[in-house]
Amino acid sequence: MDDAETTGDAYVHDIYSEDGAISADFLDRINAAIENGDADALAATVANLHESELGDVLETFDSDERGRFVGLLGDRFDFSALTEVDEAVRMEIIDALSNDKIAAAVQALDSDDAVYILEDLDEKDQAEILAQLPFTERIRLRRSLDYPEESAGRRMQTEFVAVPPYWSVGQTIDYMRDSEDLPTSFAQIFVVDPTFHLVGAVDLDKLLRTKRPVKIEEIMRETRHAIPAETDQEEAAQIFEQYDLLSAAVVDENERLVGILTIDDVVDVIQEEAEEDLKRLGGVGDEELSDSVVETTKSRFLWLLINLATAILASFVIGLFDATIAEMVALAVLMPIVASMGGNAGTQTMTVAVRALATRDIDIYNASRIIRREVTVGFINGIVFAALIGLVAAVWFASPALGGVIGVAMIINMVSAALAGILIPLLLDRFGADPAIASSVFVTTVTDVVGFFAFLGFAAWWFGI
Amino acid sequence: MDDAETTGDAYVHDIYSEDGAISADFLDRINAAIENGDADALAATVANLHESELGDVLETFDSDERGRFVGLLGDRFDFSALTEVDEAVRMEIIDALSNDKIAAAVQALDSDDAVYILEDLDEKDQAEILAQLPFTERIRLRRSLDYPEESAGRRMQTEFVAVPPYWSVGQTIDYMRDSEDLPTSFAQIFVVDPTFHLVGAVDLDKLLRTKRPVKIEEIMRETRHAIPAETDQEEAAQIFEQYDLLSAAVVDENERLVGILTIDDVVDVIQEEAEEDLKRLGGVGDEELSDSVVETTKSRFLWLLINLATAILASFVIGLFDATIAEMVALAVLMPIVASMGGNAGTQTMTVAVRALATRDIDIYNASRIIRREVTVGFINGIVFAALIGLVAAVWFASPALGGVIGVAMIINMVSAALAGILIPLLLDRFGADPAIASSVFVTTVTDVVGFFAFLGFAAWWFGI
Repeated sequence: MDDAETTGDAYVHDIYSEDGAISADFLDRINAAIENGDADALAATVANLHESELGDVLETFDSDERGRFVGLLGDRFDFSALTEVDEAVRMEIIDALSNDKIAAAVQALDSDDAVYILEDLDEKDQAEILAQLPFTERIRLRRSLDYPEESAGRRMQTEFVAVPPYWSVGQTIDYMRDSEDLPTSFAQIFVVDPTFHLVGAVDLDKLLRTKRPVKIEEIMRETRHAIPAETDQEEAAQIFEQYDLLSAAVVDENERLVGILTIDDVVDVIQEEAEEDLKRLGGVGDEELSDSVVETTKSRFLWLLINLATAILASFVIGLFDATIAEMVALAVLMPIVASMGGNAGTQTMTVAVRALATRDIDIYNASRIIRREVTVGFINGIVFAALIGLVAAVWFASPALGGVIGVAMIINMVSAALAGILIPLLLDRFGADPAIASSVFVTTVTDVVGFFAFLGFAAWWFGI
Repeated sequence: MDDAETTGDAYVHDIYSEDGAISADFLDRINAAIENGDADALAATVANLHESELGDVLETFDSDERGRFVGLLGDRFDFSALTEVDEAVRMEIIDALSNDKIAAAVQALDSDDAVYILEDLDEKDQAEILAQLPFTERIRLRRSLDYPEESAGRRMQTEFVAVPPYWSVGQTIDYMRDSEDLPTSFAQIFVVDPTFHLVGAVDLDKLLRTKRPVKIEEIMRETRHAIPAETDQEEAAQIFEQYDLLSAAVVDENERLVGILTIDDVVDVIQEEAEEDLKRLGGVGDEELSDSVVETTKSRFLWLLINLATAILASFVIGLFDATIAEMVALAVLMPIVASMGGNAGTQTMTVAVRALATRDIDIYNASRIIRREVTVGFINGIVFAALIGLVAAVWFASPALGGVIGVAMIINMVSAALAGILIPLLLDRFGADPAIASSVFVTTVTDVVGFFAFLGFAAWWFGI
């Protein structure tokens, strides 16, 4: 153990510089090895990297560098790093390799990592690669791949320890000491009957605290949170989170144990799901940082097109009052303020609502309370900002009446914004749509249309133009 | 073990109804017990709930119901549920209890849960409660509370198993079988020298696979990711995530082992941090669902006030061209479209940038590539939408020139939006500000001002008005 391992800041691995990027020194060493075509030096440089560190190195490279890096490493390239990079990077590396090479590499991986890599390939490549694997492994991977995308069955690891309930603690420990065929790491063992039906689980600390003669069935706990393999990964993650699980059994439709889900996979899912909401609210879908210009342009186009349609709709509303505006240009100057404040207030409410729906914190018991709260908050802030903008407008255009008109429009739009911000996500959710994707378009349409209509309409009526 | 435990859908605990809310049946049973003042029935009803389930029950109640529920349960109320509820709910329950009662309840909790509850109290209450605890526990909790808020030291558990390196596997197992003083659950044991300096760790599966005579020092692994107690919880969470840790040692400034952080605490941190970005981008800060009207109004006010200021700034820009608008009202009708498209495109870029900064996926190596990509995407989408809106405007107002003017303004604003969307978060981050909080104000200010100025200015010049 070297010194760095015992110092307080040893957790900052030395391949990273202060700002969290891969250090220039380290990249220089890698680039030197690549330029010299020195595969041994390159392999030695990256030998001790954690798969996530190797993933960061891959993402730092441009496309050319990545190709030369993986090519030079050859068999010594650690494929598990591919589970830590963006999909675009992963596909680029995989596409450059022959199916033979992929088959050889996949055999060295844990089953969940292997599935993670195989699932993005097309059917034909998958079949070719699987055909080259040993029977047991082929069956295991095939089974995982047969479960739906983003299901517990896809994410599970098929390596686990299972023992019969009538074994003693001593027998179990002896088995673990002698068996060659155990998973690389595990935190619990499962108890199954002869037909592999799950009957319980034993945490390793429990096993270690118990005397050798005690039977497994006496110390096993209920596996209350066994997860059917078809379960969506997001739902599985919520179960982990709610019950603070470290791992959970995955069972097939006959309730037979087929694999385990571990918390480290679930952490990724939790992060992805939270990120998904954030990106969808921002109108960037499932975009990743390494996507190309073409992919990015395409993925953002639809959102902008929908926004164009709603912006034109708002313009039509303004167009209804063109005579009024021609008479009183101050209205054109002030009208974006009402719409913009409504848009922001609506976004605030919508953000809270979308997040609460995602975490299931909003339900029939508190929905009406939250709607009341939002409308009240909108009304109070509406009055405050009506006073502020009313004063500004009255002074700016020397017209107290104009101040009054914009104030009234502000209150109307802030209350509409609150209603739209909470009701639209609730309705979308009720009808099975994802509130994170569509809410924001509807909410800003409402606040724009109501904002322009309330302000211009009330002005037209008040000033009689 | 009852039937439900072994069926595939047993993970759906029966206190929840289909839609994820607490079932009406279950609430009826609780309410009946409360109305009858039957403490035993109430205790029996909630006895087997997981702390997170009890937390959900508490959040379902209104303030009155909560008070009666906790009051009737008395000593049988499981305080760990308080770690699973919103701060407002937690404080309401704690505030209603005497310090004596809190002190008694806190003793039954794991140290991390106890600290979680104590840290929100004021100094005086904290001191009073700590004074009533046994010496060792008082010292432990005091030490955790002395670390900064949201640090690893605050979140750590001070119960752990530590053994000397010269012990054998057999000795260690015997110690665990006989000791009464072990944590409720653990996944690894730590190896320390006589002064409690951390020298390594052993995972329980490793311990179970090794023969009894082998020395601990032969099987221990480096604890490369020991976390200094002052480390911010977000940084700690990133280490867990990067290295797929299940638990990590927490060390003090002298590198002595003071506690452990476990993945279940870190999962909460990861979720909180992702949620924080989402809420800050939406302009709702650290708001929680159970906040009152007054708190909510206040927390949203500042954001809306800043937005009012930027909206007025945009209005001033429009005001510069009031003569032009008076001459040609179509400009007032069309101008929100240019600003709105820029705002949306800017938000898209900004969302990607803020998230990439939070996950440290953007660094000096790829920043310039990402800036180039964003500007290119902005330019391409600018041209496409310039053509679309140019056509609409030309037909609508029967003026090809007006179509040309809005098209040019659209391209200018889309490119500005891309630049603002990427550069503003990068600059804020560089100067130590949180890009999630402030980016969106600056970005929409840029897109509004540039949008109105480009469109109205170009129109004024082109049409000579």
